[in-house]
Amino acid sequence: MTDFRSVAAATGQPQGPSFAVHGPADVANACAAAAEAFDTYRATDAEVRAAFLERIAEEILAIGDDLIEAAMQESGLPRPRLEGERGRTVGQLRLFADVVRKGAWQQLRIDPALPDRQPLPRPDIRLRMIPLGPVAVFGASNFPLAFSTAGGDTASALAAGCPVVVKGHPAHPQTGALVAAAIERAVAACGLPSGVFGHLVGPSNELGAALVQDPRIAAVGFTGSRAGGLALAKLAQARDVPIPVYAEMSSINPVLLLPEALKARGEALGTAFVASLTMGAGQFCTNPGLVLAIEGEGLDAFVAAATSSVAAAAAQTMLTSGICQAYASGVLALEGNAAVETLAKGAPGEGTQGGAALFRTTASAFLADKAMGHEVFGAASLVVVCKDEAELLALLKGLEGQLTATLHMDVADEPLAARLLPVLEIKAGRILANGWPTGVEVCHAMVHGGPFPATSDSRTTSVGSLAIDRFLRPVSYQNLSANLLPPELRDDAHGAPRLVDGVLKI
Amino acid sequence: MTDFRSVAAATGQPQGPSFAVHGPADVANACAAAAEAFDTYRATDAEVRAAFLERIAEEILAIGDDLIEAAMQESGLPRPRLEGERGRTVGQLRLFADVVRKGAWQQLRIDPALPDRQPLPRPDIRLRMIPLGPVAVFGASNFPLAFSTAGGDTASALAAGCPVVVKGHPAHPQTGALVAAAIERAVAACGLPSGVFGHLVGPSNELGAALVQDPRIAAVGFTGSRAGGLALAKLAQARDVPIPVYAEMSSINPVLLLPEALKARGEALGTAFVASLTMGAGQFCTNPGLVLAIEGEGLDAFVAAATSSVAAAAAQTMLTSGICQAYASGVLALEGNAAVETLAKGAPGEGTQGGAALFRTTASAFLADKAMGHEVFGAASLVVVCKDEAELLALLKGLEGQLTATLHMDVADEPLAARLLPVLEIKAGRILANGWPTGVEVCHAMVHGGPFPATSDSRTTSVGSLAIDRFLRPVSYQNLSANLLPPELRDDAHGAPRLVDGVLKI
Repeated sequence: MTDFRSVAAATGQPQGPSFAVHGPADVANACAAAAEAFDTYRATDAEVRAAFLERIAEEILAIGDDLIEAAMQESGLPRPRLEGERGRTVGQLRLFADVVRKGAWQQLRIDPALPDRQPLPRPDIRLRMIPLGPVAVFGASNFPLAFSTAGGDTASALAAGCPVVVKGHPAHPQTGALVAAAIERAVAACGLPSGVFGHLVGPSNELGAALVQDPRIAAVGFTGSRAGGLALAKLAQARDVPIPVYAEMSSINPVLLLPEALKARGEALGTAFVASLTMGAGQFCTNPGLVLAIEGEGLDAFVAAATSSVAAAAAQTMLTSGICQAYASGVLALEGNAAVETLAKGAPGEGTQGGAALFRTTASAFLADKAMGHEVFGAASLVVVCKDEAELLALLKGLEGQLTATLHMDVADEPLAARLLPVLEIKAGRILANGWPTGVEVCHAMVHGGPFPATSDSRTTSVGSLAIDRFLRPVSYQNLSANLLPPELRDDAHGAPRLVDGVLKI
Repeated sequence: MTDFRSVAAATGQPQGPSFAVHGPADVANACAAAAEAFDTYRATDAEVRAAFLERIAEEILAIGDDLIEAAMQESGLPRPRLEGERGRTVGQLRLFADVVRKGAWQQLRIDPALPDRQPLPRPDIRLRMIPLGPVAVFGASNFPLAFSTAGGDTASALAAGCPVVVKGHPAHPQTGALVAAAIERAVAACGLPSGVFGHLVGPSNELGAALVQDPRIAAVGFTGSRAGGLALAKLAQARDVPIPVYAEMSSINPVLLLPEALKARGEALGTAFVASLTMGAGQFCTNPGLVLAIEGEGLDAFVAAATSSVAAAAAQTMLTSGICQAYASGVLALEGNAAVETLAKGAPGEGTQGGAALFRTTASAFLADKAMGHEVFGAASLVVVCKDEAELLALLKGLEGQLTATLHMDVADEPLAARLLPVLEIKAGRILANGWPTGVEVCHAMVHGGPFPATSDSRTTSVGSLAIDRFLRPVSYQNLSANLLPPELRDDAHGAPRLVDGVLKI
């Protein structure tokens, strides 16, 4: 195959221009250019790098409505959602510009020489973080802007000083090409080497595999399926020089409805839950795919309201026909499971549309069947009814790692919540109260990460300013003269916070 | 085998008491106890945890000279070295006590709610680091105190709030048992659950494999051979839930002699170099195993002085007969390499003693033969003669990842050093000027780490206070009530630094 075409999500039919399929030679060229650009790019000062990130944001906005329309066509997501996502994408680039300027990401540390120390003098030792090297980024189909070509992985890697080679998602090649061209314009406008950003497209897995295996790639950012993330992690580990893979993969995002909250507002919770479940056709990494509660009247009210909301839910166009088929299979498997009761199905929809679905089972059935804990990507959720707190705790302890865990509670539920929290902390990257996990704020304190298989590396986040740490490593400098020290580590440097002899100075 | 005995390094003969060999049931028991202790231990406040670390230090000192004598017997290392190492071990525990008290390790971040933000309000989001879970520690034979049972991995994992299960090094079971008992006394004295520390001993690799494969283990710290580290990393990756392995493995620690420094003091550098090379029978991770310089008179003077110093060097007892045999094979391979010239060999020694050895080759021969770049653990080093700066740079670029890179230089060498630094930064965890890489300061700015294969994870250090980060992961809390928030994230908390809305507050 030498070219491929964009596919309209709504029809499953090819549309728009065709794109040349990149092959091994293109991968090698992009990686060589990235490696070539690395020293120049990482040596840029904070202002240059921050201005570059801001310029990318401006260039993306300057594309105008063509970008939104391309993304609507290719993803089937509605206009307001994509306009919001563009705002998020641009805001994320600007956040990282601010992070780069403030300089805390360098984690500067200075232990001055102690020439008179006994029994041995201490040398002068200074530490900073440096970028890992060229980063391969695999965008996600479900956020064609914010988790794709110029998404969080790209923004945080560029902020760290790493050139980026994006493997564009084949579900939105037009959108990807528009954004890639915007980044390329920003590279040129800022006078940076063109290898700072590379963009490869094609529908095959081989393309991505070749990228991860290229010896010049130093780290990988990925958002997508568990199978995809695990395959990339395996390739990365099998290299002569293994590299880190930050794969955000699979999560069913348990929502715990505590007894007093259920008693007080079971019905309202049921309605609000379905609004979160069906948002964007349920195609969020943080979609609430599992509801846990102790049996009782409050839960009955929740289930009744959620059931009627799901039954009334309109079908929605899914991102790709592959995702739509996988969703239908997942729903079918739950329907066919004798231990699972189908509470409601929304309007079935046609073609690439997916209808919402709600199921119920018992804690003992859930514990006995691992398959019930697997992600069904789309607007399906499973309510698991527990007999008591002990069963709820056992169920939580048996869960795999999650991006989020949600508690709905009242003040009177706090003692129970306090007993659950230590388990939730071990299971999830973010714990939230009285809200819904969909909606991931891009800020400093956000963790969009979590224990395996939510991600391949629980020590990190892919959203928020802490994401920059994924692409850095520490280097220390011992007794280097001021002329040779990186400027930010010299005695006369200022601006970035530093730890001097163990004491933090701002 | 049900028991095994300690072996005297000097004689290779069994000595002292025998030790029961632990098996799979002991691994399971230790891991179950660690998992059981985890929630209690991680919930301890800073003062309790810091006092515990300090108590371990006191208990180690309280063992008195028995500890030094056991370590001397088992490792063959001399008394002053082991007394120094005990000081380092105790100092390291106290450093982490200080780190725990200061609280920066928690990386607290608070993004307060913005209820009036448009188009959507921002929730209250707060982040802290939490410990990963029980950590398996594999001590090193070459530092029976500072990198073993109560070494840097144990100290940093305990500081992070992780219970530790040590797989004691079979080369020093007596030393290990004394230190393990000291830690156990500290656990009891501080009223902590006994599972906070576990100690497993035995001579087989199966014991360590079972430990890494236990599902309750959340991370691994290892110092040792490349083969050993890679084997553990492979096991860790193959688990149902993969876990991070921090293996510090293999480094030849290039020393670059720049032309002006060589001209000014080639002879003195040669003598000082051999002192570093032969220290502790060359059994340091940071031993200078590779010397790089551009040909000329200064280099000739260096080589002449180093050659006569090596020739005059006494043989020294090595840590184990296995290490001694591996060293002899490594030396033999270099001697038998037609492209390598043997400059000098020290006194050959008997039994488990190793003699120093110095070799010379050309850059082109080195570049053509990867085997020359492999670590020979012991007091052997290879001088690689480069024709010019271009050849030196090519050689550096071809090197594998290193723990350290050293520059000997004068002011007039600085322009050349500035051209070399970007390459050295990519290759090594620590760059030092006008010193020797042996001697790793335990401080805040130290990086004892580096790109693969120096370590399995270049993003970390195993020495210094930054080592605590290896055992932590971020969790964020969204809209939790003050009652449920961890105390350090509440509005009224004080002491630890925090990032509030992106602004660092001390």
